[in-house]
Amino acid sequence: MPPPAPGFPTTEYAARVQRAQVRMAANGLDALLLTTESDLRYFSGYLTRFWESPTRPWFLIVPLSGKPVAVIPSIGRALMATTWIDDIRCWQAPDLHDDGVGLLGDTLRELAGEGAQVGLPMGLESHLRMPLADWARLQQASPGLDFTHDYEITRTLRMVKSTGEINKIRAAAQVANRAFARVPEIASAGVPLDQVFRRFQMLCLEEGADFVPYLAGGAGQGGYMDVISPATPARLQRGDVLMLDTGLLRDGYFCDFDRNFSLGPPSDAVQSAHSRLIEATHRAADIARPGTTAAELYHVMAATLNSSDSSAGRLGHGLGMQLTEGLSLIPDDHTELQAGMVITLEPGIALDGGRIMVHEEDIVIGARAPEFLSHPAPTTIATLDV
Amino acid sequence: MPPPAPGFPTTEYAARVQRAQVRMAANGLDALLLTTESDLRYFSGYLTRFWESPTRPWFLIVPLSGKPVAVIPSIGRALMATTWIDDIRCWQAPDLHDDGVGLLGDTLRELAGEGAQVGLPMGLESHLRMPLADWARLQQASPGLDFTHDYEITRTLRMVKSTGEINKIRAAAQVANRAFARVPEIASAGVPLDQVFRRFQMLCLEEGADFVPYLAGGAGQGGYMDVISPATPARLQRGDVLMLDTGLLRDGYFCDFDRNFSLGPPSDAVQSAHSRLIEATHRAADIARPGTTAAELYHVMAATLNSSDSSAGRLGHGLGMQLTEGLSLIPDDHTELQAGMVITLEPGIALDGGRIMVHEEDIVIGARAPEFLSHPAPTTIATLDV
Repeated sequence: MPPPAPGFPTTEYAARVQRAQVRMAANGLDALLLTTESDLRYFSGYLTRFWESPTRPWFLIVPLSGKPVAVIPSIGRALMATTWIDDIRCWQAPDLHDDGVGLLGDTLRELAGEGAQVGLPMGLESHLRMPLADWARLQQASPGLDFTHDYEITRTLRMVKSTGEINKIRAAAQVANRAFARVPEIASAGVPLDQVFRRFQMLCLEEGADFVPYLAGGAGQGGYMDVISPATPARLQRGDVLMLDTGLLRDGYFCDFDRNFSLGPPSDAVQSAHSRLIEATHRAADIARPGTTAAELYHVMAATLNSSDSSAGRLGHGLGMQLTEGLSLIPDDHTELQAGMVITLEPGIALDGGRIMVHEEDIVIGARAPEFLSHPAPTTIATLDV
Repeated sequence: MPPPAPGFPTTEYAARVQRAQVRMAANGLDALLLTTESDLRYFSGYLTRFWESPTRPWFLIVPLSGKPVAVIPSIGRALMATTWIDDIRCWQAPDLHDDGVGLLGDTLRELAGEGAQVGLPMGLESHLRMPLADWARLQQASPGLDFTHDYEITRTLRMVKSTGEINKIRAAAQVANRAFARVPEIASAGVPLDQVFRRFQMLCLEEGADFVPYLAGGAGQGGYMDVISPATPARLQRGDVLMLDTGLLRDGYFCDFDRNFSLGPPSDAVQSAHSRLIEATHRAADIARPGTTAAELYHVMAATLNSSDSSAGRLGHGLGMQLTEGLSLIPDDHTELQAGMVITLEPGIALDGGRIMVHEEDIVIGARAPEFLSHPAPTTIATLDV
């Protein structure tokens, strides 16, 4: 199946905005003010790696009716003009005296009016991507505007993916599936782990990734110590368990899953741990239906594992435009699954000597059994170099 | 020359903290509170791609004396324990009821005391990487703490690089130098631009990049339209100018420069534009000494170009742990260059029909002539496919 065409039709963005506006009206909001890459892109389609530069702030205003309005640095005008957004207001950033704050305040007052309620993402996983001093200045200069919580409108909308979004995440996962199938080409005893990391990213790109912003993993005798450390030049050895966990991007959407490999035949402890991780994943998948809660997925995995790796803090999460977004598989998250959610199942298990093993799959919640976007790993751990 | 060893000796971090503490004392600050990847890493050495996940907040407190204290999610404890930081306080994130705010407030009160002045980056290029609601909660729960501006201490310290940091940026630039030299292997008439983007990232990785978070560019007949758009599948044609601009990472430090290529012999207009870009770069480099201002570099380039590409807003910037950081080459930035600053010279030029060309080099400011970290491009534009 060929990957989907880049971007989305305008109808997709219009539908997102309409859903937001219904919720804004219900909550008495006159506008949403958005500042982060993923929130801007969700409503506008503005896709660029330029956010890697922290210098310039970018703003998108979603009014109670009509299309969003972009208030952005002039360097972004040409690209924004290729999206469905018509009203694009620019300043030349960086401006040491007024880096868009005046233009933003004027635009908000024009669109939302005096006494308007302007909602911003303020809760879990959010941040305000503008200098705090400018945020204070905006509030001081806008006594007629009431800046308030966005009632999680953007976050909760983004948690449920459209068919078009699922197609993009599937395409990203297919790239990673192909790259993982080629790990035997790049990993064997004697190869430095940092070289494996570089070569695995090259495989992801060769198989169709646009960018590989995230690659974590580890390698160690009978398990690894940690899953977020940079790769060292230590050479793989027989008896190592190698884990690679990629978050690669294709057309602005992530996949996020990992695979474990045994260098040479696995020990009984490693094979047993891997079997339990796979069993936990499938027990969770078996109950992953609309109405099941995030906490229930956590508990079914934790019960299978007997020893959950508590340091990770969760056994899975949502994903999409960000590597992680939306719900968390933790005991306290009682969010109910809905058809169209894309989540990871990510059980971890503690082994002797502080070692761990982690497994991760990506699934789409549907009316019946979830679809695995990652090719589900078999119970038997993959082996290299045998 | 082999690349430098990973990380820095503890003395490097101790020196950074000491410099910060001198400035904190001078400004009456009792602590710095830092929340972003680069600010945390600057004082701690904590290096991971895990920041790609927006879910968890991370905090580092720099007290007026003594080592920084980390207040972080438990998933980061093992890696943080490998740095020079001893005092690591963790909570299990995400916590839907208190995602580190209580622990952070307690730690700040313990370290800084009642009535303490706690400085945060609030100015240009900064943001607070924690939910706004949690920021409000922290302030409400800490009436005895006065949260205030950090007087740009972190930003201005980070603008002047140590020898160790320059070595890392040089190593990153050398990777890119080698990758750019291999562009003829991957780019010729008929190759889709998105394929060139993927293959160029693969070259960067093969030559030693750890990650390639940023690649921009463009291609078009006699110049390109935009430098921040994603690559399309449009095939390169004779007469195109291809530009690739990479920000690759090696051991946590970026390089950031570009190269232009003509597909087939360049037109007179393209060669002339390229010559002027190179001339502008060297005129700026010729005066880039301690005491010269950022604005002076801007003006010498703008005068050479006659037509500056105004949409970009600046003709260069600092770089280091971020793709862009520190000063901006704009008329209003009167920051004086200091030995140890690493900056880009990035003139742009407008051509007919809305097309542009942009050139970029990376230099280190020293007592005498600046060192070029990028191999300076020759006046004659490189050609492919001739």
